[in-house]
Amino acid sequence: MEFSSKILERAVNEVSQLPGIGKRTALRLVLHLLRQPKAQTQALTEALQTMRNDIKFCASCHNISDNTLCEICSANNRNSEIVCVVEDIRDVMAIENTSSFKGLYHVLGGKISPMDGIGPHDLNIETLVNKVKEGKIKELIFALSSTMEGDTTNFYIYKQIQDYNVVTSTIARGISVGDELEYADEITLGRSIVNRIPFETSLKS
Amino acid sequence: MEFSSKILERAVNEVSQLPGIGKRTALRLVLHLLRQPKAQTQALTEALQTMRNDIKFCASCHNISDNTLCEICSANNRNSEIVCVVEDIRDVMAIENTSSFKGLYHVLGGKISPMDGIGPHDLNIETLVNKVKEGKIKELIFALSSTMEGDTTNFYIYKQIQDYNVVTSTIARGISVGDELEYADEITLGRSIVNRIPFETSLKS
Ligand SMILES: [Zn+2]
Ligand SMILES: [Zn+2]
Repeated sequence: MEFSSKILERAVNEVSQLPGIGKRTALRLVLHLLRQPKAQTQALTEALQTMRNDIKFCASCHNISDNTLCEICSANNRNSEIVCVVEDIRDVMAIENTSSFKGLYHVLGGKISPMDGIGPHDLNIETLVNKVKEGKIKELIFALSSTMEGDTTNFYIYKQIQDYNVVTSTIARGISVGDELEYADEITLGRSIVNRIPFETSLKS
Repeated sequence: MEFSSKILERAVNEVSQLPGIGKRTALRLVLHLLRQPKAQTQALTEALQTMRNDIKFCASCHNISDNTLCEICSANNRNSEIVCVVEDIRDVMAIENTSSFKGLYHVLGGKISPMDGIGPHDLNIETLVNKVKEGKIKELIFALSSTMEGDTTNFYIYKQIQDYNVVTSTIARGISVGDELEYADEITLGRSIVNRIPFETSLKS
């Protein structure tokens, strides 16, 4: 793609760094911003900078939060002894949307994926294991997507906590294998939490 | 969509103002930026701000340019008496890519579209008409997409210049009706310029 302006080219190149956005889409987005008032670009860039620089993560569950403890962890009507382990805050949003779960979450921040250079120490696993060791958790529900990386991550965590007094389960597989949690319909997702199965059972299936 | 953080919500809302980007895609993009080094968000937002605040348009053809006159208008191997009228700088890029045109361009910045509240005075039409009146242009090639808005715009310009000594043509319709120029393959697009037809003829077809 040949650009008539270096400034334009640089903007298109930066936007096309985003996942799923090619050069053509980036150019379309950038030209759209040029046709809108300057205030729109200003608001967009300020919101992104504030987000990247000021966002905080819940000290307990690692959910994105504007306070030290997120709204879920600090609510007094939730059962802190049941913890649902998820990959990403989008999974928290999806499960909360079903209103079927009244425990807490633990956001790992990803899955173990040697292909992408993501090891256990890049994820929020240690804090979860510590919570189990301290006896704070009676039940752990694994709710990662059922991909190889998800299964590897579940199993890695399971090995570290299996000698402690904690019940482990995985969400019922009403959700098709390989599907992302956040795209599941609410009923299927809600039911898969209610019908969760012991993790040991899931290993045999 | 329920967010656990106002800062996150604001970033998602701003990103989802962009055309074709829904809330889910916006959340995915924003979470991607959170996982990348801060420098990436910094580079992205700086590039967008510089683009929106500092970009210039060619004083003659309204193409995006880092100088007063764009590279095409200031080149000495182009025929300034043949001017190709296009909607948008993406069309300039697409036609330049075919290497079949050695005249200059005139970028309107859109099409007349009462539905979207875009009238003739929102577009770079007056400067084009003036160039014709001053006798600087011998031939005008209309290369807008063949939609109702494109046809309306062509006709509006045509009415203003028909009494002056200028040949008008439209690009040959090898390109399917309703298709966007920028998605046409190079050969079809190049040929449609070489085989352009007099604008009056196109009105009868
Ligand atoms: Zn929390
Ligand atoms: Zn120019």
